[in-house]
Amino acid sequence: MKNIEEIMQTLTLEEKASLCQGATFWNTVEIPEKGIPSILVTDGPHGLRKQTGAEDNFGLNDSIPATCFPSAAAIGNSWNKELIYKIGEALGEECLQEEVSVLLGPGANIKRSPLCGRNFEYFSEDPYLSSSMAKNHVMGVQSKGVGTSLKHFAVNNQETRRMSVNALVDERTLREIYLASFESVVKESKPWTVMAAYNRVNGEFCCENQYLIQDILRKDWGYDGVVVSDWGATNDQVKGINMGFDLRMPYCGEHKTKQIIEAVENGTLPESKLDDTVRRILLLVKKGTENRRPGTTYDVEAHHALAEKAALESAVLLKNENQVLPIAKTDKIAIIGSLAKFVRYQGGGSSHINATVDTYILEELNQNYPEVHYEYARGYRLKKDEIDEAYVKDAENAGKSADKIVLFLGLPNGWESEGFDRKHLNIPNNQIDLLEKLSKLGKPIIVYLFAGAPVVMDWDNNADAVYAMYTAGQAMPSALLKLLFGKVSPSGKLSETYPLRIEHTPCSLNYPELEQAEYKEGIFVGYRYYEKKALPVKYPFGYGLSYTSFEYGNLMVDKKDLKDTEVLHVSVDITNSGNVEGKETVQLYVADKESSVPKAVKELKGFEKVTLLPGETKTVEFVLDKRSFAYFNTQISDWYVESGEYELLIGSSSIDIRVSETIYVESTVTVRKKYDEYVTMDELGKTAVGKNFMGQMMAGMPEGPSEEEKERMLDDEDNIEDVPMDFAAMGQDMPLIKVCDMTAGSFPYEAVNEILNALNN
Amino acid sequence: MKNIEEIMQTLTLEEKASLCQGATFWNTVEIPEKGIPSILVTDGPHGLRKQTGAEDNFGLNDSIPATCFPSAAAIGNSWNKELIYKIGEALGEECLQEEVSVLLGPGANIKRSPLCGRNFEYFSEDPYLSSSMAKNHVMGVQSKGVGTSLKHFAVNNQETRRMSVNALVDERTLREIYLASFESVVKESKPWTVMAAYNRVNGEFCCENQYLIQDILRKDWGYDGVVVSDWGATNDQVKGINMGFDLRMPYCGEHKTKQIIEAVENGTLPESKLDDTVRRILLLVKKGTENRRPGTTYDVEAHHALAEKAALESAVLLKNENQVLPIAKTDKIAIIGSLAKFVRYQGGGSSHINATVDTYILEELNQNYPEVHYEYARGYRLKKDEIDEAYVKDAENAGKSADKIVLFLGLPNGWESEGFDRKHLNIPNNQIDLLEKLSKLGKPIIVYLFAGAPVVMDWDNNADAVYAMYTAGQAMPSALLKLLFGKVSPSGKLSETYPLRIEHTPCSLNYPELEQAEYKEGIFVGYRYYEKKALPVKYPFGYGLSYTSFEYGNLMVDKKDLKDTEVLHVSVDITNSGNVEGKETVQLYVADKESSVPKAVKELKGFEKVTLLPGETKTVEFVLDKRSFAYFNTQISDWYVESGEYELLIGSSSIDIRVSETIYVESTVTVRKKYDEYVTMDELGKTAVGKNFMGQMMAGMPEGPSEEEKERMLDDEDNIEDVPMDFAAMGQDMPLIKVCDMTAGSFPYEAVNEILNALNN
Repeated sequence: MKNIEEIMQTLTLEEKASLCQGATFWNTVEIPEKGIPSILVTDGPHGLRKQTGAEDNFGLNDSIPATCFPSAAAIGNSWNKELIYKIGEALGEECLQEEVSVLLGPGANIKRSPLCGRNFEYFSEDPYLSSSMAKNHVMGVQSKGVGTSLKHFAVNNQETRRMSVNALVDERTLREIYLASFESVVKESKPWTVMAAYNRVNGEFCCENQYLIQDILRKDWGYDGVVVSDWGATNDQVKGINMGFDLRMPYCGEHKTKQIIEAVENGTLPESKLDDTVRRILLLVKKGTENRRPGTTYDVEAHHALAEKAALESAVLLKNENQVLPIAKTDKIAIIGSLAKFVRYQGGGSSHINATVDTYILEELNQNYPEVHYEYARGYRLKKDEIDEAYVKDAENAGKSADKIVLFLGLPNGWESEGFDRKHLNIPNNQIDLLEKLSKLGKPIIVYLFAGAPVVMDWDNNADAVYAMYTAGQAMPSALLKLLFGKVSPSGKLSETYPLRIEHTPCSLNYPELEQAEYKEGIFVGYRYYEKKALPVKYPFGYGLSYTSFEYGNLMVDKKDLKDTEVLHVSVDITNSGNVEGKETVQLYVADKESSVPKAVKELKGFEKVTLLPGETKTVEFVLDKRSFAYFNTQISDWYVESGEYELLIGSSSIDIRVSETIYVESTVTVRKKYDEYVTMDELGKTAVGKNFMGQMMAGMPEGPSEEEKERMLDDEDNIEDVPMDFAAMGQDMPLIKVCDMTAGSFPYEAVNEILNALNN
Repeated sequence: MKNIEEIMQTLTLEEKASLCQGATFWNTVEIPEKGIPSILVTDGPHGLRKQTGAEDNFGLNDSIPATCFPSAAAIGNSWNKELIYKIGEALGEECLQEEVSVLLGPGANIKRSPLCGRNFEYFSEDPYLSSSMAKNHVMGVQSKGVGTSLKHFAVNNQETRRMSVNALVDERTLREIYLASFESVVKESKPWTVMAAYNRVNGEFCCENQYLIQDILRKDWGYDGVVVSDWGATNDQVKGINMGFDLRMPYCGEHKTKQIIEAVENGTLPESKLDDTVRRILLLVKKGTENRRPGTTYDVEAHHALAEKAALESAVLLKNENQVLPIAKTDKIAIIGSLAKFVRYQGGGSSHINATVDTYILEELNQNYPEVHYEYARGYRLKKDEIDEAYVKDAENAGKSADKIVLFLGLPNGWESEGFDRKHLNIPNNQIDLLEKLSKLGKPIIVYLFAGAPVVMDWDNNADAVYAMYTAGQAMPSALLKLLFGKVSPSGKLSETYPLRIEHTPCSLNYPELEQAEYKEGIFVGYRYYEKKALPVKYPFGYGLSYTSFEYGNLMVDKKDLKDTEVLHVSVDITNSGNVEGKETVQLYVADKESSVPKAVKELKGFEKVTLLPGETKTVEFVLDKRSFAYFNTQISDWYVESGEYELLIGSSSIDIRVSETIYVESTVTVRKKYDEYVTMDELGKTAVGKNFMGQMMAGMPEGPSEEEKERMLDDEDNIEDVPMDFAAMGQDMPLIKVCDMTAGSFPYEAVNEILNALNN
């Protein structure tokens, strides 16, 4: 493809405008006579969905086979940055073979509510974890010369009315939670495209949202790639291009192209802005074209093996009473539950993959574990939440003659998907009923739970062990059996909290909302909420069991006092104190000991996953910087570290902190406050000007007891009457102007202005 | 005093302006030459604080003796409308004797957080209970020809920065919670004055808040009395008078009068508006003057007896294990705790009363129960939260030789007051420590808790019985002993929830805020929050034990179907099924079975307190009307009842519902929605126009499976693959305009306008 500036010279206004939307559902516009080819984009993110038949947005029609990796919610539990990078590479290779230039994804939206139907496509409730995973996904794919589309920018946290709802979010919450999950991805991994979401944010649709696109993405984060719409998300594209939006997808008709032409002609859209957009689109097409490697093929088996590794690291062992897991191959097992046969290894909607292998658990067992004796019973109806007594009976019979029961529970396919939200967090009643009946047999019960997001688990007292499998991709069956029989020790940790009840979730009072979705919980999302509200949870963020155990020690920091411009090096030793090889995810949280703004109890600011042989010790290192201690200060529109003590909490989950250290960070930034006549005595007392004034004012007041006298009074328990009223406490919130009022102007109003002038200069 | 219109004719602009603020701290301006006397107003509300020495706002100086009744938080627990009316009458009589024309109070602010330092002056977390009590207080006082001042209007729910903080509250929350607590008081009891609060609401100070004063108070509620400022709360009085505010208190200097004169002269304040204000002030002065009854005296003993009755009905028995209460006079008792000697029977700040009698528990015991053997030990230091081993030792010794321990716990005087908020909900550690040590003695422990608001009670497992006494007024000692020895059975019920932890309170994530106080919990205040969040609480709203028991039965409604314009008569029979006389507060809650807007699980809509001899049955009646079922619909700016089923829940507390009935209410109001191009398929499908259109549109789409076919698929458990994707669910939130986009305009944009025109007309 020619130099872009050369091409630009030759383009007519009509051609430029035509480039601003797709040619079809998945292709960009080609203009062969100007040397502009078309590139192909397809759905992802955890596998290719390149359609073969008629195009559609929801996987109605067949797509070419592709490796189905665990979806984001599953891989988020791996906490393994190298692993997701490798998956990215594999996805890139598959794109090269299929001549796909941009793989749509990953999704970096924060899981605001576990009800969101699309949560299985997102990584976490925590922006640090989410952006770390998304960043490595992007880098992996793009290392192969294939583009990504970081989506859905931004605040697309409910499927309900996702194309029209207006998310109302304060700026601190946006910056610290919802945008933070995109920020380091954009800055550090430079995705070829960023996909603007369907919804409105603070009144403007994402595709034409000045704050999101112009102020944050372009200006603050310096993003110069293509901003593409989610499919059908563009509304007023002229407005959008004016503020840095680029590409409407899919093709929506000539009408749309004409609107752009007319806008340039009538001056509402400067041609220079359109040129910027066209340049970015052409650059994308050029990159896509020039990175093509015709004839590339990928190793289907190697990718499947990678998918298995990912599934192994994504599974979270939630419960393992009396070390019932792993089981021996000599155990006679009853495999119960329709979900063992009709497996759920991916979610519904645009991410639905046509896997390269058949994915069956029983077949996997037959083929690779021929020595294992098992019996299968379906146990419950999957399509209808009705108790089928015959199924139950069969299951009970299978259970009776087994040593151990392996029970498959979870959400039927239609219960969670892109496009709608769940209404509750329950699994079907017929499954709970079955578990209860089976528990009466007195056999150990191991539950494998299939759900793309948390469910309420008040039934798990009837299970001895529980694995949360999520939507673990096409290699789920082999991974599941390796975990069952202990070929591999589990190492997944929850990337989101499992609440005790739906009512306890952060936005339960108003989720979802149809028109205005007010994010009233603010920054308190996920564990930030449960911890701040001191709510017990079922399973906490960062939690997950292993077949081995780990010890933490020797926490070191390279300094205990630092300025907010310095970095802090932290290290800790982890030892495998058990008997089998295992992986541990070491989590580092920062807690601000005292803050002038509401803050989470602690926040994740680092994590590393290490593999350890029995008895082996490794040192894990972290580097913390300003952002590790900062909050977004809206007064200065910047990240700000309040001087003070911060606690470093390192452990195995958010509630299992093993070692800690307190350090002191000093701010190098002065926040100047502008005072008005409602400045309080308390605020005044903290300034030199104010102290001076208070001294003068108090000179005219009746003198209170001296400090000595106060102390004497407090010691004198016998005379309760003479406790001095704490007028300091009562008066500290009095505004300056009220001193004039309450003294009938004997403290003159002119003095207020003098003091304010002195304070503000 | 002459006819007001006659006086008005004679007044100069300067005189009119001068009448708009106080002459002193407690007096209005007199203009003898124009026949305008001064009237005196004083602090209340649960007793007179008429100062004798220099004036001040915080009770620094002596005031004349007056009966100290239980404060609002205590009397709120009585749920006794007749009782508070009688207290009002008594207060009115005391005002007549002291020539006080307006008694400042009652306070109808809602308890948003238990931390608010002034909660002891407010009735409840529930607007129905709060307004019922406030209304009867006002009617009682005013029946004697003495005015009241309903305060603090409005949304004055934190003491922190109360003079400058800006409360941000959505309209539905204002109407249903914060304003609802004032509404029926204003409409039904017509307080002579309404006191505008210090704070800002949605950006404007209360004394000059157009929404609050002009739109709501004057226009919507038809209030024609005087709006007076809280002391020092006026900011821009010219702005205030323009929208219906009247009287600045106290006198703040000539400067303020001049501002009004200048505003009239320069046209920013129409003289007609000033005249309206002056007329209202003169009418108040006239009423105050003409209702004087010089030489009136009141019966000090009768008022004290009334105060005792009030204290008896205000005390709430929270716990009484093994019926340890009441105790026998023959029991040897250990009275432990400094709070038994240095009693807390009222709160701090402007409501502090100089009681007519000395209030000592031990003296009361000595005088009226000479036969009782007791020993007193102070047990803990009250002024300093330090453990004094000698005190503890004494207490243990006293406990050892007693049959029962009566322990006095609670908040020291300085821990809660007007003027500042608490920082936590704990009682002093030295008290908890003492209780724990005493519990080791194995003697029954009865705790009397003194606090004007809830405290965290994770210590009460060490107590056999607990009474919440609140700030119960000057007759607290005799009431307490009558309850202890069973002369009277307790009948108080909590007018607010006792949470398990401070973190569980509705606004714990952001209370208090210094500048912008966002009421993010919305309507979910008090039990509305705990129930909606399914949070366990320590003691629920409406809860309180008795020495007898009550049975509920025979719930009757006069219709099961009604229109929202009709009233519903409900009755229920209550029987005293125990052995002693007792009083029961029968509570009626309404639950909306299904709602299109977020709603509380249930809401208090009626209560009645009945006295019953053992075995006696009484029928309690309720009348419900539109408001009992309505929410405030901001779309139509009016109360609105959604057609549907409502449950009537009648019981002994918010969690002890004894009988229930479901009725159907039909709305007579049609809410017309204005649709735009983002109207969804789901919304369209609910309209005739939309259905027609959808039919046409679907005609071109591939036909989905028939209902029969779907049913067959759901029955076929063996073929998991053929479950139809629920495209209806996925498509229902698609906006109309997106149909054009996603069909590349083959569904034309013109059709959208046609449909919208048809929909909106």
